Amino acid sequence: MLHAVIMAGGSGTRFWPVSRKRQPKQLLPITGAKAMLAETVDRLDGLIPPERTWVVTHALQADGVRKICPGLPADNILIEPCARNTAACIGLAAALIQKKDPSATLAVLPADHLIAPARDFRTSLEAGAEIASEEGVLVTFGVPPTYPATGYGYIQRGESVGAFHGLQAFEVRSFKEKPNETKAEEFLADGNYAWNSGIFVWRADSILNAIEMHMPQLRKGLQTIQDAGDSLAEVVEDIYPTLESVPVDIGILERADKVRVLETPYHWSDVGSWKALFDESKKDENNNAGVFPDGGQLLAEKSTGVLAYSGTPQTIAVLGLDDVVVVHTKDAILVARRDASEDVKKIVDSLKENDQQELL
Amino acid sequence: MLHAVIMAGGSGTRFWPVSRKRQPKQLLPITGAKAMLAETVDRLDGLIPPERTWVVTHALQADGVRKICPGLPADNILIEPCARNTAACIGLAAALIQKKDPSATLAVLPADHLIAPARDFRTSLEAGAEIASEEGVLVTFGVPPTYPATGYGYIQRGESVGAFHGLQAFEVRSFKEKPNETKAEEFLADGNYAWNSGIFVWRADSILNAIEMHMPQLRKGLQTIQDAGDSLAEVVEDIYPTLESVPVDIGILERADKVRVLETPYHWSDVGSWKALFDESKKDENNNAGVFPDGGQLLAEKSTGVLAYSGTPQTIAVLGLDDVVVVHTKDAILVARRDASEDVKKIVDSLKENDQQELL
Repeated sequence: MLHAVIMAGGSGTRFWPVSRKRQPKQLLPITGAKAMLAETVDRLDGLIPPERTWVVTHALQADGVRKICPGLPADNILIEPCARNTAACIGLAAALIQKKDPSATLAVLPADHLIAPARDFRTSLEAGAEIASEEGVLVTFGVPPTYPATGYGYIQRGESVGAFHGLQAFEVRSFKEKPNETKAEEFLADGNYAWNSGIFVWRADSILNAIEMHMPQLRKGLQTIQDAGDSLAEVVEDIYPTLESVPVDIGILERADKVRVLETPYHWSDVGSWKALFDESKKDENNNAGVFPDGGQLLAEKSTGVLAYSGTPQTIAVLGLDDVVVVHTKDAILVARRDASEDVKKIVDSLKENDQQELL
Repeated sequence: MLHAVIMAGGSGTRFWPVSRKRQPKQLLPITGAKAMLAETVDRLDGLIPPERTWVVTHALQADGVRKICPGLPADNILIEPCARNTAACIGLAAALIQKKDPSATLAVLPADHLIAPARDFRTSLEAGAEIASEEGVLVTFGVPPTYPATGYGYIQRGESVGAFHGLQAFEVRSFKEKPNETKAEEFLADGNYAWNSGIFVWRADSILNAIEMHMPQLRKGLQTIQDAGDSLAEVVEDIYPTLESVPVDIGILERADKVRVLETPYHWSDVGSWKALFDESKKDENNNAGVFPDGGQLLAEKSTGVLAYSGTPQTIAVLGLDDVVVVHTKDAILVARRDASEDVKKIVDSLKENDQQELL
């Protein structure tokens, strides 16, 4: 059976001041009326029911996840006692789901991506599940690049392995880290590179075997968790902090043999910054975007290229300024040059230095 | 006796979103911990007591004035049923004060100017009162210009009339409207021009006689008000809207004979815009100014020349932007290029067009 494993552990600082430790991006309505996690769950509707939908999150955020996903069984919310990166997160989910459903196939999904239309996404999951039905095959979702992005990793495709539900799939020749601009332009021109969207499909046994082969220590820890009975929570609490902290791409996918890339047909963004949200938002005739999930207005005079965001109703007036981001929350406001919005981490760092916990 | 007539009727839109119809600039703590009107009253301490301090304001703002000036006798708050500019406002106060104190001398003070130190201001009022003790003399306060300001009117001085309390006084040769930059530089270089600060001292009988001579219709209306008995409020309500609406400079001072200008010794600004507030505020080592009368902080990264203002505790973070103004209120935020902050009226106009009364 096809299960969804939604990774919702990120404590993104890149959407400060809206995102906070207890309210990271995935729990917020950044791109629509609902929290991004809720939209991720909704996107599965008709393909993967709640009882086969799992959310892996951090203890600090578990309450938020439960509120946002009231339809999920309580046991389907898996708590990481601490962040140990994606290999451990995915391994934990695979180990626990496999106990309930030994033949489980897992669609591994970040909780905070923008994907549309949902129908095309579900078709891609079906295609991915079909490819992953072969023992040991690990499927990655590669997004055809539309511009020379330097903010994404890339997947270089090799030989075709055929079409599935109308979508092309390929062997993977290599994974590439986030490139510089020249490299990114080469990748785009080459035509054989796709953005690594961090979305994967594989059988629980395939990924656990791959972990066994390439990260045996991790597999050992997961086995202890898998063997835990009633004391599962305590065992996870004990073992999880000791696991290796490595991204699944680096720890497993770059080393594994039977890795495939599926060419996705939908629009995708990881919405990794306020700048990216501007890029994804509807603009008015002056190229200004007001994003107000709960109401509000942007009044722009002699200004273009503005993104205004508030999660609560608010009037944001911008006068004589181009290419700025204005973000309102009840206790903090961010005003940034749009291209500098990825540096918001510097603000967060200075709050940490001053120990202003209430703003983190 | 010397009385103070504080003109607090302005419904400034230039400090939107902080200033609103019911909360204009003079009722707000723009330059210090107290409302500008309260600081104007405090500045008189030791020279003019509350029983001789009068505030002229608009009905909409009367409650605000009473809250801010709890020490003033209720009768000393004079209500304009509508705005009729400074000649009528000053005339109303003169007419009513003269009834109580026929030999009254009036110091006419805008409620929303920044003046320091207060001691030097009081010395100037004493000097002004001495000059104005001569029948018919109208004294204006001229501030020696420190830069070629285009936002102020100018007073050209004539012959010296001597020194009073150590301050020089002159006859007035002419009044000049707000100049363009070239003119302003000429005025500065010339040395005989002072900024018209809109602060005046005269005997009640002198100004009423001057009104009689130069605006006889206004004097007639004021006489009706002066003659009203118990029905004063109704008479004002009836008459005031019919009065000519003209600034006292244009209606009286430019035409009168015995006008003097006193050279003031203190620092003065009319704080007419957010830009002016920046100019008047304390900057940090990066030339950024955070103004938070009730607490708050500005976090500026890679930014200079920023003014951040909030009347309620708030964190304002600015990233990668120079020379901007960020103003926070509970329901509206303004972000403006600092030099464009005088155009905030355009935002207010668009709110009026959309009939967004709650933001006006």
